[in-house]
Amino acid sequence: MAAPQIEQLIHLMSKIPGFGPRSARRAVLHLMNKKEGVLIPLITSMQAVADNIKKCPVCGNMDTMEPCSLCSDIKRDESQICVVQDIADLWALERVGLFKGKYHVLGGVLSAIDGIGPQDLSIADLVGRIQSGVVQEVILALPATVDGQTTAHYVAERLEKYPVKITTLSRGVPVGGELDYLDDGTLQMAFKARRDF
Amino acid sequence: MAAPQIEQLIHLMSKIPGFGPRSARRAVLHLMNKKEGVLIPLITSMQAVADNIKKCPVCGNMDTMEPCSLCSDIKRDESQICVVQDIADLWALERVGLFKGKYHVLGGVLSAIDGIGPQDLSIADLVGRIQSGVVQEVILALPATVDGQTTAHYVAERLEKYPVKITTLSRGVPVGGELDYLDDGTLQMAFKARRDF
Repeated sequence: MAAPQIEQLIHLMSKIPGFGPRSARRAVLHLMNKKEGVLIPLITSMQAVADNIKKCPVCGNMDTMEPCSLCSDIKRDESQICVVQDIADLWALERVGLFKGKYHVLGGVLSAIDGIGPQDLSIADLVGRIQSGVVQEVILALPATVDGQTTAHYVAERLEKYPVKITTLSRGVPVGGELDYLDDGTLQMAFKARRDF
Repeated sequence: MAAPQIEQLIHLMSKIPGFGPRSARRAVLHLMNKKEGVLIPLITSMQAVADNIKKCPVCGNMDTMEPCSLCSDIKRDESQICVVQDIADLWALERVGLFKGKYHVLGGVLSAIDGIGPQDLSIADLVGRIQSGVVQEVILALPATVDGQTTAHYVAERLEKYPVKITTLSRGVPVGGELDYLDDGTLQMAFKARRDF
């Protein structure tokens, strides 16, 4: 066995998603072998994130600013809110760079199995933002899973009484998708929602 | 894009073996979401390793002690040295718990392609340890790869003139190994080295 400090670090690393006990061991060896070049900069960087990154009280994004840089950006359209499951999805949409409105991070989706109910998600905060009256469109960019779509329906229902347009992402054949390899559900949906060429 | 500190951390994490850009992003999100429970303990643990872990000047193991706890352990047999490629292999042998002698970590294997020559490995240190005259057996526990075996032959040659017995790990069918799935080389070797039942 390695020294207790090393075993402790391996244990903590193995809890990070993407790592198991074996790969954490390999990673820790790498970090120890490259102490000056990798381990020390990593510690400094983690410390900077731990010290400076806050959850935005408005949308739920993580940033050094509070409210976050997206919420504070006056060039972004306040009349559109895009509702996402988590920050990873917000980042994905920002990478695409098409959407210039504001976001709302739910922090998950409703799940009977995992015991996640409406009170565990920031749905009340979203309703609060809609009540201010500025928002005209809510885009539900939630996962195309059963839980994701249950959540989308629930959120839409909660917003029914407000004068906002509710939209969702289109479904169909993904770019580069071979029909042969697509699941039947997607193919059916793409066929039903066919449009003029 | 996320805040610069976050992007920086993702970049550093993506350099750790086992991570790529996408999984590093996911891991960083996890760390930020569990700041108190995961990120802060991880920083503390990494700092402890960075501050306290040293390379053993005798065998090349990493430990808080110098010489390491294995080299300092008077209950371990000084007359046997097991030569391994790296610390991961030392740990693997320690997990098995059979060997009660000392180790010597080479820090790699000879490789023409990667430009690793004898001067890049701690072979001279090993020769120095043999010259002290205490060692009676050197066990070459190097990988069963071309580079590993080239290194084993090279080390054996360098130790030729000293009165030490040089041994190596046995080869054959691994425990639980189905003959059908074994590579031809292993099967040939296992057949040639067959023993009385």
